[in-house]
Amino acid sequence: MKALEEKIIREGKTAAGDVLMVGSFLNQQIDTGFALEMGKEFYRLFKDDNVTKIFTIEASGIGLACLAATFFRVPVVFAKKSKTSNISGEVYNAAAHSYTHNCENTITVSKEYILPTDRILIIDDFLAAGSSLSALVSIVKSAGATLVGAGIAIEKEYQGGGNLHRKNGVRVESLAKIRSMSGGKIVFCDD
Amino acid sequence: MKALEEKIIREGKTAAGDVLMVGSFLNQQIDTGFALEMGKEFYRLFKDDNVTKIFTIEASGIGLACLAATFFRVPVVFAKKSKTSNISGEVYNAAAHSYTHNCENTITVSKEYILPTDRILIIDDFLAAGSSLSALVSIVKSAGATLVGAGIAIEKEYQGGGNLHRKNGVRVESLAKIRSMSGGKIVFCDD
Repeated sequence: MKALEEKIIREGKTAAGDVLMVGSFLNQQIDTGFALEMGKEFYRLFKDDNVTKIFTIEASGIGLACLAATFFRVPVVFAKKSKTSNISGEVYNAAAHSYTHNCENTITVSKEYILPTDRILIIDDFLAAGSSLSALVSIVKSAGATLVGAGIAIEKEYQGGGNLHRKNGVRVESLAKIRSMSGGKIVFCDD
Repeated sequence: MKALEEKIIREGKTAAGDVLMVGSFLNQQIDTGFALEMGKEFYRLFKDDNVTKIFTIEASGIGLACLAATFFRVPVVFAKKSKTSNISGEVYNAAAHSYTHNCENTITVSKEYILPTDRILIIDDFLAAGSSLSALVSIVKSAGATLVGAGIAIEKEYQGGGNLHRKNGVRVESLAKIRSMSGGKIVFCDD
């Protein structure tokens, strides 16, 4: 999605430790008009797959997932990174390493919200090493639901997570794929 | 909003410790069609207030805020509950007690996303004792921005946070106001 690549170049900031900051439109401030455009693009890609639910992980994925859901007209379910008093009953758990927090999380979702009859589209803002995506995929499998694919805003392709999942048969569609970010210069796969 | 009260009665579950679970449509699974209706109601209430940004707190508020933003056509900014590597530069901080996690959080937002020229509408899913709302309000004040008001999905009126903020001059509009929840029976203020 050319408009996303242009926005990353215009507004994104790189920082030490291989960090790409897109807080001005995706991570902390959400440019909701632009996120709707990304949602429409996910819909174009997955509209024939009879998606019944969009599945994401707190926190930055939720806005994008909800705006995409306005096109699919399905509910959004988000996995939580910690157990809280407002989740009850049986849950699915999966381990995920958080790249931005540099810690291990156990992500949690109530069993009642991911059903064997569901056709799940995973949506997330970032895909790097692929740990969050692995955790979400493993929950979809545990539930016996059908995984339609994953729609990602920004993939750091050089970190390998996306291609690992593709090799495992997951349809991963990323709206912007970054080939390299060395020295603060962002190069996209289709440059 | 009668439709929300009916949905709470139909789908909500009460639990020990004064907990109301609305995970089926607001907290874990988001009924995006219904959340859009709530967003439209916030727009009806605040459409003449020249809102420039919607401000919320991760995680459950984000979906509702983004869907409401499709009517206001403004960006959403969300405060984070922990500092991560993708926030840089100067930040505003405020202390908040989390009711569902039973812990103290320091919430954080980059100074660049709340400006003195902004007219802020706070949106959140729950208002009980009002600690999260206090933290959000204090950040808006620190930034020198104008607080237009707060749009809340569900207020537990008997916990006093909403009325405390109203007494302090904040316009708090709650789509469902719960007067009592004793013995698992939910009574609304307009019952």
